[in-house]
Amino acid sequence: MYPRLFGQMKKQLGQLDRWLEAAGAFAQARAFEPSVFLELRLAPDQFAFARQVQTACDTARLAASRLTGKEAPPQPDAEKTIEELRARVQGTVAYLDGFTSADFDAAATRVVTQPRWEGKTMTGADYFLEHALPNFYFHLTHSYAILRHAGVKLGKRDYLGPLSQKAAT
Amino acid sequence: MYPRLFGQMKKQLGQLDRWLEAAGAFAQARAFEPSVFLELRLAPDQFAFARQVQTACDTARLAASRLTGKEAPPQPDAEKTIEELRARVQGTVAYLDGFTSADFDAAATRVVTQPRWEGKTMTGADYFLEHALPNFYFHLTHSYAILRHAGVKLGKRDYLGPLSQKAAT
Repeated sequence: MYPRLFGQMKKQLGQLDRWLEAAGAFAQARAFEPSVFLELRLAPDQFAFARQVQTACDTARLAASRLTGKEAPPQPDAEKTIEELRARVQGTVAYLDGFTSADFDAAATRVVTQPRWEGKTMTGADYFLEHALPNFYFHLTHSYAILRHAGVKLGKRDYLGPLSQKAAT
Repeated sequence: MYPRLFGQMKKQLGQLDRWLEAAGAFAQARAFEPSVFLELRLAPDQFAFARQVQTACDTARLAASRLTGKEAPPQPDAEKTIEELRARVQGTVAYLDGFTSADFDAAATRVVTQPRWEGKTMTGADYFLEHALPNFYFHLTHSYAILRHAGVKLGKRDYLGPLSQKAAT
C-alpha cells in the first residue's frame, strides 16, 4: 500500500505544480508581481503560501525518508519566486521517484521519530496514517485554498487531477 | 489497510467535531449568532462552510458504502446550526463504527461508480486513493481553514489530534 500512497502524493504534487503555473499566469494577466503570492496567508498566525508549499513537499520527502530508513539530503527553504517553488515541487517528485516498492517493505514496523518529539517514537504505520498523510493534505489544501481565495481560477478537477476511470461498457 | 484508513477518517471527524465546538464557543464569546459560520466561504465560487462539513462527512460515508457494497441510508443536507452540523459529524462516525474489518475484504477490487461519472467506473483501490481520500482531506481542511480565517483559535494539534506515540526510553 505504501508505494501506492506515495504514488498518489506524487500525483498531488504534480497538480500543485500546475496550480503554481496558474498562479504565475494569473499574476501576468493582472500585471502584478507573481512573488506576491509567496507571502499570502489565510490567517496571520498560519503559514504563508511559500511555507505551505515547502511543508507539503517536506512532508512527502521526509515521510519517504523515514519509512525507508534512507536519509534525505538537506533542503533549505530559500525559494523567492513561483518558479523556484515549482522547482522545489518538481525536485520533490524526482526525489520520490528514486524509491522502489521494495524500499517500503519494512515501512509499517520501522521506528520513527523527529527532533520535536523529544525522544518519543511512532511506528511507521501510525506515523504515516496519523501524521504524514493528514499533514501532507493539510498543507497541499492550504496551498490550493490560498490561491482560490486570491482569485486564481482553479477547480476540483485541478485538485484531483485525472482519475483512473474505465469507460462505460 | 482500509479499516485503518477509515479509522483515521473517524479520528479526523472527531477533530472536526471539536472545531465546531470551538466555533460555537468563539461566537458566544464574541456575541454573534453561531450559525453565521455556516455561510462563510473563502472564495465566492467555493462551497460555504456548512457544505464543506457536509461533504467531508459524505465523502467518508459514501466511500465506506461503496467499498463494502452496503447501501448508505439517504442523508439530506438540512443542517442550519453548528449543533446540527455536530450531530451530522457524530452520526457519520457512528455510521462508520457499524463496519467491521471483514466488510472491507473485497474493497480493492470492487467496481465503483457514481451518477456524475456517466457510466465510467473505478476499482475500489483507485477510487479510494485518487478520489475519496483526497476529497475527504480537501473538505476537512477547507472546514478548518474557513474557521481559522474567521479567527477561531485552532492549531495543528487540533487538526491532527492525539498521536499514537511511545514514550522515550
